[in-house]
Amino acid sequence: MEKGRLEAFSDGVFAIAITLLVLELAVPAARGKEDLAGVLRGEWPSYFAYVVSFAIIGIMWVNHHGLMHNVARVDRPLLFFNLLLLFFVAVLPFPTALLAEHLQSDGSNVAAAVYSGNMLGCAIGFQALWRWIVHDQRLLHAHIDHRAARAAQGRFAIGLFVYAGTVGLAFVNAIATLAVHGAIAVYYVFDQLAVQPSSET
Amino acid sequence: MEKGRLEAFSDGVFAIAITLLVLELAVPAARGKEDLAGVLRGEWPSYFAYVVSFAIIGIMWVNHHGLMHNVARVDRPLLFFNLLLLFFVAVLPFPTALLAEHLQSDGSNVAAAVYSGNMLGCAIGFQALWRWIVHDQRLLHAHIDHRAARAAQGRFAIGLFVYAGTVGLAFVNAIATLAVHGAIAVYYVFDQLAVQPSSET
Amino acid sequence: MEKGRLEAFSDGVFAIAITLLVLELAVPAARGKEDLAGVLRGEWPSYFAYVVSFAIIGIMWVNHHGLMHNVARVDRPLLFFNLLLLFFVAVLPFPTALLAEHLQSDGSNVAAAVYSGNMLGCAIGFQALWRWIVHDQRLLHAHIDHRAARAAQGRFAIGLFVYAGTVGLAFVNAIATLAVHGAIAVYYVFDQLAVQPSSET
Amino acid sequence: MEKGRLEAFSDGVFAIAITLLVLELAVPAARGKEDLAGVLRGEWPSYFAYVVSFAIIGIMWVNHHGLMHNVARVDRPLLFFNLLLLFFVAVLPFPTALLAEHLQSDGSNVAAAVYSGNMLGCAIGFQALWRWIVHDQRLLHAHIDHRAARAAQGRFAIGLFVYAGTVGLAFVNAIATLAVHGAIAVYYVFDQLAVQPSSET
Repeated sequence: MEKGRLEAFSDGVFAIAITLLVLELAVPAARGKEDLAGVLRGEWPSYFAYVVSFAIIGIMWVNHHGLMHNVARVDRPLLFFNLLLLFFVAVLPFPTALLAEHLQSDGSNVAAAVYSGNMLGCAIGFQALWRWIVHDQRLLHAHIDHRAARAAQGRFAIGLFVYAGTVGLAFVNAIATLAVHGAIAVYYVFDQLAVQPSSET
Repeated sequence: MEKGRLEAFSDGVFAIAITLLVLELAVPAARGKEDLAGVLRGEWPSYFAYVVSFAIIGIMWVNHHGLMHNVARVDRPLLFFNLLLLFFVAVLPFPTALLAEHLQSDGSNVAAAVYSGNMLGCAIGFQALWRWIVHDQRLLHAHIDHRAARAAQGRFAIGLFVYAGTVGLAFVNAIATLAVHGAIAVYYVFDQLAVQPSSET
Repeated sequence: MEKGRLEAFSDGVFAIAITLLVLELAVPAARGKEDLAGVLRGEWPSYFAYVVSFAIIGIMWVNHHGLMHNVARVDRPLLFFNLLLLFFVAVLPFPTALLAEHLQSDGSNVAAAVYSGNMLGCAIGFQALWRWIVHDQRLLHAHIDHRAARAAQGRFAIGLFVYAGTVGLAFVNAIATLAVHGAIAVYYVFDQLAVQPSSET
Repeated sequence: MEKGRLEAFSDGVFAIAITLLVLELAVPAARGKEDLAGVLRGEWPSYFAYVVSFAIIGIMWVNHHGLMHNVARVDRPLLFFNLLLLFFVAVLPFPTALLAEHLQSDGSNVAAAVYSGNMLGCAIGFQALWRWIVHDQRLLHAHIDHRAARAAQGRFAIGLFVYAGTVGLAFVNAIATLAVHGAIAVYYVFDQLAVQPSSET
């Protein structure tokens, strides 16, 4: 039951953050005579950032789902490590809007670095949550899926390095940075599908 | 339990998307002397789009509810197909606001086409989710309601063609396109009520 | 389980609508030198409307809670009557912001009438949902609390007349109309506390 | 089950309020040539207020979680005392944005007093909810954790005095007031971790 409430609160934050992203998509004001299709095409950075952030939050939700599957009992530190992760999830609409607004301006590198820093924060949050879960046998299910556990540990550790790298990449090229984040998301989808074909989660 | 979390997350996204629609309704600024009733009447495209989108998200939630009723087990691809559907649900407040803003301007056809394209995306999402569910016996309840299953398959397939048609209609008349989306929603309500009078879902 | 998902979706919409009300509270821009306390005092219509709408949505949630307590099974028409009620709940932030903005302008009567009309819609939604629930024995728990059932029926019926009256009152005095809505909310709180002292819901 | 719905609604409001805070973070408009890093640094009051409010809502959620753990049955007054608490939780994004906007202007003291007043309201809400829960044996679990119960009572009572003090401090220094709120949040985290190391909640 207690784990249920942690999951309900987390699901709520993930669901709200992923849905609030839509507020970043600005509706151009009607001016009577205009080429709306052209105006919308010019807004491509918003749509690009929206799709990447949506995919990332969605995949983080799937990962959170998989992580909690291993948890039998919830203690207070786990609640706070989970809050740390949710902090970086809930704030994501801000760097998403920031990067969309500045992707074609002089501030693109700074905006991309903030965006990548937020992803690094998410990776640190997952890593901290995961380390706390596995450090105490009493928190884990007796029949824990060790293969999934090791895979998760590896994925989260690699994620730390990859996301640290994207912070550096941000100062080279902001659009490439966003594309890399999108590619990482796609990679995680196929990686997870390959590991467990047709098995229930 | 796992299915429960998928439903909780999906219910969250549906509930937030349907409630965020209200942010599209602009409050005219007070100017002291004015004919507020007249100003509000002039905002009819906003209310029209709001009602249609509210009805569509509500009915999609009922359909999602019916779809998941048949599901016994959840696997990872199903999570991602569900995310694809939720993508088109969560983004719906954007084309709703776009269409409301441009329904009476030169951009009305483009806005209506974006709106219809979003509905087509929802239909594709439902189709993909449904096909994945029925392709694997292990995901289905033993006592699946085959009549409902066939009805769903048919509805989703027809939906693909109808929504593709509304994309074309958007370039003829935007108001008619929105009216057709409203009519489709009303049709689905009565269709579903007729198929299963008084039976529990 | 099916009833659980209906409640989860409804709880989501109630929780989001009640929390989105806060977006109506405008933050005055900092201008360096200013009397912020005076500026905030001038915003009293916003706070008044916020408190009344918060109380109303909260009490409607308690009533929805009490209503669903009697329900044993959920059918499709019930889902749609519930959606009708949620429509008027989800849209409430709009008339709340409208009334707050116009409470001291010429548009106050129109804004108050829209607000009262929304409340009338809520009352109609509750009435329709309740009538559908009690028209079919199969939807009700065997051990239904008939006293609560009759009380609910009476409350909802009276509500229809009272809210219709507030639409008329809106054209006399907008501030009084909002005060009456607040008084109705307070009345419902004490009424419900008096009927069932210390009994579990 | 009834308690479950109370928790679901409360979790929803906590999750939405904590996630809506992000809307307070303004995205500076792109101007082509600019020092985005400098602009963002100038927005530090927003980030400071965001982090403090996020931590406070998160900790209140953990406390609510702990409080409800002791509750066996839910009655109607409890629903309304819970609504009182949720009122102060749901409105928190407003004083957060107010304080962020005015932290460096003449209105900083008023804004900080409003912020502190909101925290005082939360403390009163917790106090009222807790007193109602413990006044009636039937609402409590037989095997209630008396140590946690006493600790909660003490924490909530001390909170009333501390938060009343921060209202006064607001008129001395707004930044110090926000820092004190942050420190209280950090204190609560470590206090709770120290009391119950590794025990499940």
